[in-house]
Amino acid sequence: MPHINLPEGLPGIRGLMAYSPGTAKALNALAEVLLREENSLSRSERELIATYVSSQNDCLYCQSVHGAVASFYLEDDGKLIDQVKKDYQQAPVSDKMKALLSIAGSVQKGGKEVTPEQIEDARNMGATDKEIHDTVLIAAAFCMFNRYVDGLATWAPSDPQLYRERSATLAQIGYAGSNPYK
Amino acid sequence: MPHINLPEGLPGIRGLMAYSPGTAKALNALAEVLLREENSLSRSERELIATYVSSQNDCLYCQSVHGAVASFYLEDDGKLIDQVKKDYQQAPVSDKMKALLSIAGSVQKGGKEVTPEQIEDARNMGATDKEIHDTVLIAAAFCMFNRYVDGLATWAPSDPQLYRERSATLAQIGYAGSNPYK
Repeated sequence: MPHINLPEGLPGIRGLMAYSPGTAKALNALAEVLLREENSLSRSERELIATYVSSQNDCLYCQSVHGAVASFYLEDDGKLIDQVKKDYQQAPVSDKMKALLSIAGSVQKGGKEVTPEQIEDARNMGATDKEIHDTVLIAAAFCMFNRYVDGLATWAPSDPQLYRERSATLAQIGYAGSNPYK
Repeated sequence: MPHINLPEGLPGIRGLMAYSPGTAKALNALAEVLLREENSLSRSERELIATYVSSQNDCLYCQSVHGAVASFYLEDDGKLIDQVKKDYQQAPVSDKMKALLSIAGSVQKGGKEVTPEQIEDARNMGATDKEIHDTVLIAAAFCMFNRYVDGLATWAPSDPQLYRERSATLAQIGYAGSNPYK
């Protein structure tokens, strides 16, 4: 049961966004620019970083939604997402993505965990300053989203189909245009 | 030295906001609604929560700026901020604030660390659902800001006077209207 009285029937951050439209607007604007705006990292790569960090934070709702959005873009059945969460070093993603996921994993533990060697490794794999910047901020932002969702004890459905349906909506209309009730 | 090439002379998040104006706009909009909009928690109480979480995350820049903003509102010389960071249970803040700081401290560790007993305690001290919601989201947001600032290895001045000057600017013009160059 959530720690505060939220509109019923809306899982995860959707209940919180319906409860607090003012902060929802700011949070959705941030998600929109981080995960969807024009970027040399594809939308699926950015959703994969968000999914990995949410998995490391053990946030079921966020890793399920963003994993489903990444799968939607990749036309994947969910296997790649599971591989990345379990052991991204063995997953079929680029060496640049592996280096960026390593940075994201350090950010999840704490900002000071990121080492110059990780940054150098990412550069050697072709990552630009902007890609490193965006990886750190996406990982940091999901440390916020995950804590918001779990810190207020929201509920998360266990049926993957519900996340697949939500991912199609989010991929089409985006975060800024999303409505927690629909 | 920062991990990426940032505009020179701008400490902490200011260098990052100058580097990435698109994300800066979304982040400042979030800070504005969380820390400054009309709320039953005063601006100083919300800045105190932000400062405490930043201190727990060992983020020098964020705890210095937001501690200075809290001091500015409280017309305090910084002693209260130091007391809250060191041991808020012994600090001269309300019992409600102590209960909310306890929740914020758990959010800093991870969303699932928040217990029903902490929520009940905050309610017994008079905290409303909205105050609990805002405390969790402020704490979560500073887990993001702190990771962003330290995850890219930005620099932080050691002179408290520089933070006092910045705090006066931020208290007057707010976050949404702030300019990283000024």
